[in-house]
Amino acid sequence: MSNLISLGSDNHSGVHPFILQSIHDCNEGHTPSYGTDPLTIKAKSVFKNHFGPKAQAFFVFNGTAANVLALKSLVKSYQAIICAEDSHLNIDECGAPENQIGCKLIKLPSPDGKIKPIDIEKSMIRQGDQHYSQVAAVSITQPTELGTMYSLQELNDIKTVCKKHKLKLHIDGARFIYAPYYLKCSFETLCQDVDALSFGGTKNGLLFGEAVILFNKNADFKYLRKQSMQLPSKMRFLANQFIHLFSPLSKNEPSTLEPLYLTIAKNSHQLAKYLEEKLCNIEELSITQPVQANSVFVKIPQPWIKPLREKFFFYVWNEANFECRLMLSFDSTKKHIEDFIDHLNNVKSHHPLGDC
Amino acid sequence: MSNLISLGSDNHSGVHPFILQSIHDCNEGHTPSYGTDPLTIKAKSVFKNHFGPKAQAFFVFNGTAANVLALKSLVKSYQAIICAEDSHLNIDECGAPENQIGCKLIKLPSPDGKIKPIDIEKSMIRQGDQHYSQVAAVSITQPTELGTMYSLQELNDIKTVCKKHKLKLHIDGARFIYAPYYLKCSFETLCQDVDALSFGGTKNGLLFGEAVILFNKNADFKYLRKQSMQLPSKMRFLANQFIHLFSPLSKNEPSTLEPLYLTIAKNSHQLAKYLEEKLCNIEELSITQPVQANSVFVKIPQPWIKPLREKFFFYVWNEANFECRLMLSFDSTKKHIEDFIDHLNNVKSHHPLGDC
Amino acid sequence: MSNLISLGSDNHSGVHPFILQSIHDCNEGHTPSYGTDPLTIKAKSVFKNHFGPKAQAFFVFNGTAANVLALKSLVKSYQAIICAEDSHLNIDECGAPENQIGCKLIKLPSPDGKIKPIDIEKSMIRQGDQHYSQVAAVSITQPTELGTMYSLQELNDIKTVCKKHKLKLHIDGARFIYAPYYLKCSFETLCQDVDALSFGGTKNGLLFGEAVILFNKNADFKYLRKQSMQLPSKMRFLANQFIHLFSPLSKNEPSTLEPLYLTIAKNSHQLAKYLEEKLCNIEELSITQPVQANSVFVKIPQPWIKPLREKFFFYVWNEANFECRLMLSFDSTKKHIEDFIDHLNNVKSHHPLGDC
Amino acid sequence: MSNLISLGSDNHSGVHPFILQSIHDCNEGHTPSYGTDPLTIKAKSVFKNHFGPKAQAFFVFNGTAANVLALKSLVKSYQAIICAEDSHLNIDECGAPENQIGCKLIKLPSPDGKIKPIDIEKSMIRQGDQHYSQVAAVSITQPTELGTMYSLQELNDIKTVCKKHKLKLHIDGARFIYAPYYLKCSFETLCQDVDALSFGGTKNGLLFGEAVILFNKNADFKYLRKQSMQLPSKMRFLANQFIHLFSPLSKNEPSTLEPLYLTIAKNSHQLAKYLEEKLCNIEELSITQPVQANSVFVKIPQPWIKPLREKFFFYVWNEANFECRLMLSFDSTKKHIEDFIDHLNNVKSHHPLGDC
Repeated sequence: MSNLISLGSDNHSGVHPFILQSIHDCNEGHTPSYGTDPLTIKAKSVFKNHFGPKAQAFFVFNGTAANVLALKSLVKSYQAIICAEDSHLNIDECGAPENQIGCKLIKLPSPDGKIKPIDIEKSMIRQGDQHYSQVAAVSITQPTELGTMYSLQELNDIKTVCKKHKLKLHIDGARFIYAPYYLKCSFETLCQDVDALSFGGTKNGLLFGEAVILFNKNADFKYLRKQSMQLPSKMRFLANQFIHLFSPLSKNEPSTLEPLYLTIAKNSHQLAKYLEEKLCNIEELSITQPVQANSVFVKIPQPWIKPLREKFFFYVWNEANFECRLMLSFDSTKKHIEDFIDHLNNVKSHHPLGDC
Repeated sequence: MSNLISLGSDNHSGVHPFILQSIHDCNEGHTPSYGTDPLTIKAKSVFKNHFGPKAQAFFVFNGTAANVLALKSLVKSYQAIICAEDSHLNIDECGAPENQIGCKLIKLPSPDGKIKPIDIEKSMIRQGDQHYSQVAAVSITQPTELGTMYSLQELNDIKTVCKKHKLKLHIDGARFIYAPYYLKCSFETLCQDVDALSFGGTKNGLLFGEAVILFNKNADFKYLRKQSMQLPSKMRFLANQFIHLFSPLSKNEPSTLEPLYLTIAKNSHQLAKYLEEKLCNIEELSITQPVQANSVFVKIPQPWIKPLREKFFFYVWNEANFECRLMLSFDSTKKHIEDFIDHLNNVKSHHPLGDC
Repeated sequence: MSNLISLGSDNHSGVHPFILQSIHDCNEGHTPSYGTDPLTIKAKSVFKNHFGPKAQAFFVFNGTAANVLALKSLVKSYQAIICAEDSHLNIDECGAPENQIGCKLIKLPSPDGKIKPIDIEKSMIRQGDQHYSQVAAVSITQPTELGTMYSLQELNDIKTVCKKHKLKLHIDGARFIYAPYYLKCSFETLCQDVDALSFGGTKNGLLFGEAVILFNKNADFKYLRKQSMQLPSKMRFLANQFIHLFSPLSKNEPSTLEPLYLTIAKNSHQLAKYLEEKLCNIEELSITQPVQANSVFVKIPQPWIKPLREKFFFYVWNEANFECRLMLSFDSTKKHIEDFIDHLNNVKSHHPLGDC
Repeated sequence: MSNLISLGSDNHSGVHPFILQSIHDCNEGHTPSYGTDPLTIKAKSVFKNHFGPKAQAFFVFNGTAANVLALKSLVKSYQAIICAEDSHLNIDECGAPENQIGCKLIKLPSPDGKIKPIDIEKSMIRQGDQHYSQVAAVSITQPTELGTMYSLQELNDIKTVCKKHKLKLHIDGARFIYAPYYLKCSFETLCQDVDALSFGGTKNGLLFGEAVILFNKNADFKYLRKQSMQLPSKMRFLANQFIHLFSPLSKNEPSTLEPLYLTIAKNSHQLAKYLEEKLCNIEELSITQPVQANSVFVKIPQPWIKPLREKFFFYVWNEANFECRLMLSFDSTKKHIEDFIDHLNNVKSHHPLGDC
């Protein structure tokens, strides 16, 4: 794929140069392993600065682990976790939640990637009945798998129903950097009344690494992480990547105080909007979801898909109706989009659609 | 610990510069994630070159996972795994083997880090008895936790008893790079009749990453890895680190064909021998284990330990008799050792031992 | 509930007198425990006689265990099991399948208690994709939770789709005794191409006990059963109950060769049909499912439910529409039904329904 | 084994007639299932009467489950449970504790079946170290696997060390009925400062059934039991067996107020003592453990074992030194013992031992 531009996923990109620099910067000398080094301590305090004083960050290797361990710290095996039908948790983890937590997932419909408070309400059945997995937590994805964003009002409505039924609330935030940018509010505000957040690094320019952020007591978590095979050894490198994600790109230009995560979110989102705009001009296509993060969902005529993918990789999200996902990343550029649109027009001209 | 030299562990070191370079080298452009990229395919073939045509390498994040998943692919939950009492598997994984495999560990005495075929024989009881966890695999550590090495004869004796009782054989090779160097034979020879090997990267200069090498059928493994939360996303970076570990340090000097892993093994082992030699000159100390890899086990008078650790970090291995572990790494130097010995002599002069 | 007649469940009944007699009959002297006694051996051969020469019966304590262990012997943790949305497996085991097998359940719609081959077909997605729990087995309930019965044709259609996709087939047969009676065919015919059957005892007159019947290799099962805490100690009593379930009620009347299970199935089914007939005469009620086993599903006007339950216990199956389940058992009688109908008419006269 | 007397185990006996009667007595009519029936409620209060007001009894099917679920309610998966090397928990459950709790067992030496407080003390290492399974509970067996009994002083010493280190204390009481009889104190006194007790039924005359008695909060337990496949359906029969175990044998003889469990304990223990006395007269034999419950451990010359077992079944406990276990039960009689001794003398005369 060396010459191929991928619109497949933001994990098809490599490492952001500034993040890679962070790995160099801490490669001198010896430090304790397993999280007792000074950089890990510093990174944990950076998370407190952004997510509030209750936020306790724990670093793990990947997104599967971040979601599963965050939830494992919130529920017991005889309880159930509500999630969206199309959530990563449900359909892209090879059953890791069931296997590692030993519990049941209850899937709610999510045509726009979001679950609805009314559906949570309807799931609150058989409380106290020993035969039934007791609903105890809700996991939402923000932004969702479909590139949409729960609005602040929608978030609050979810929080309200959780409070009413004493449900723990978890956010799968593999791409959480887009939320404060799009919703114009702080991480801390977004996380009010949230019990645990999986804060993604890998999809946002890191080499690897995610943070589980727990907002309540968590004395058990370090043992759970180790027993679940997720305690990184040379933790300083993980920690310093996150420190840089929250730092401005260049220390030499004091006027720019924008932290890197925001630079990345801005770039990818704006390019996604630009791509959407371009796609709207082609009448054979139809955008299927509002563009609120870094992906565009669009139905593409089937005959075009194969030739399109010869130059640009992307996923067919729905095999039934040829809805495709086009995803932008920190290293995406306007030129990528323009080249893609050129190619699309070229494909269009070579594959005219019949009267169907 | 910025100015502190650590003799604590080889994971207190950072990343070998040549390995870090490998990360840079593959940071251009887009590639598929989750192991379908060209570098992962290449790395898998590098492992075949070194470990024989049956060797199937799978990359995972850390050593706990490498051991647990390798063994999970070999045994069922109602079976038991024989291991050394002092093995990482038994005492340093927070119960991950029991938790993730759901099986029992049977611990054999290992005063020199090694288990004995006769003790395996004695463990072969109650076969066919439904009440008893059926012994089905042996896991040995090479080199051992005590820096010792099973000789080729000892290895063969273990393999013979395993074959006799149809036991699967696993090697925890967190520091396996020292085995072919010390025993003067190939990886492939060492792995004959082995079912699975955890081949360590992190302790040998990598940023992170271990390879599970399976020598038999393994159609399940990719699912087990994913479900166990160990499928790395940007796999190319993991793969390229391993490719470099098996490449000569500099491509510009064609005369030097020594692969990096050998350079590292040679350096750390020779420094360990040098340290041992120096320590032998101090009569208050006693070396407790033969030095066959990259660590020196030595009893140090208790009053010296605290002042020693003010400048050099190391672990007291046995709190009962003050046996300490001094470990060398890829970035250890002769000067580190000489400084340590100077400091030791200094401590000795300030803390004379009474008649005890 | 001493004076209360229950239409709640067939496990509200006690033990059939002939079964209780079987416990007495084998209470003399000493026998080996854990299944090596002569009666267990005999019972296993009785199952072979009825279910065919491949049938291997293993006794366990209860229905949850029978289902979970049967399925655990068929699938791996990274695979998925298809079942009906309303199946016991899915909603009445407190998450035991997920917890004990570590796998995912995929629920198909089942408005009449049955799943459809077309829905199985549609679930056969992402085979070979390491991120997705691989569909590997289908579990159906016969008769279903709604008292309906897969016809022979429907069964064959399920078997055909399973064969096509190499899916294992499990039957939850908590009330399987009704199947050969209603479908007029042998157990062996019903179980052709079935991999595992949970054959219920408790709901059919036993004190306790279910049989897991495996039709393929099962060398592991004895260990799985023990490790899953389901190996009964005084197994002879379990075995002899099953022997009696397959024996004619009275040995003194040679003309009657009908085995007890058939006597029970006949009685409960015929009474269910009788009850259905009586209920049809009351226009305010509506039967919601065909009566094909031992239960009647009927919508009852809400105001009647409380007074009805003062004398006869039953479950409101669907709180939304007041569909109720009335279940007959081996000890149900015509008089119970007549008394219930009398009471119903009495309630009706005291609780006239408005114009709604 | 119909004519064979077993000295093999107390679960080779059938059901005590009074217990079997209890099953008859509650076989009339309909009752709710799963533990909401009046007899279950009564049985729970009987346990409170004997074990103190904090005692909450939960019925499960067998001893494996009682031990595993009691402990599962006390520890987390990353913790460790201390037990005796020879405990059932460790060597006779096919790894169920590791599998079902997901935790580690730490085995202490137990030459007389008992663990020592000093060995518990020595196990209290690495508290707070995330790499090490945290010791959190102690499980002792009373009476032990070797038919010995912790004295009240020994029990208190165990309790003291548990309190000191905040360890939970569990008693495996498969044969707990012998403890109050032998130690001449109440169940309540024995269970002071105990967190959970597995109170055995099956080995003491029941058809099946054990009680998990929890002395602290246990809101979770009902769900754990169900999810672990141990919720009995027709619970009344389990409950009534226990009610009878705590009732005097005959209600017609008001002078005898001795509850059945005591009658059974007295009979089996006294016969064990009688057997010990007889065996002591045979100089080729040697008693290896004090007889404090219902079994006698005795070394028997190897040539005698096969002919002895032709008429009386028993287990060779230790294959290395031919230590055998002879176990008495509720239905053992003086005549059994005398017949056994006759047979032993007969075997002795036909198999004279050489000068060895």
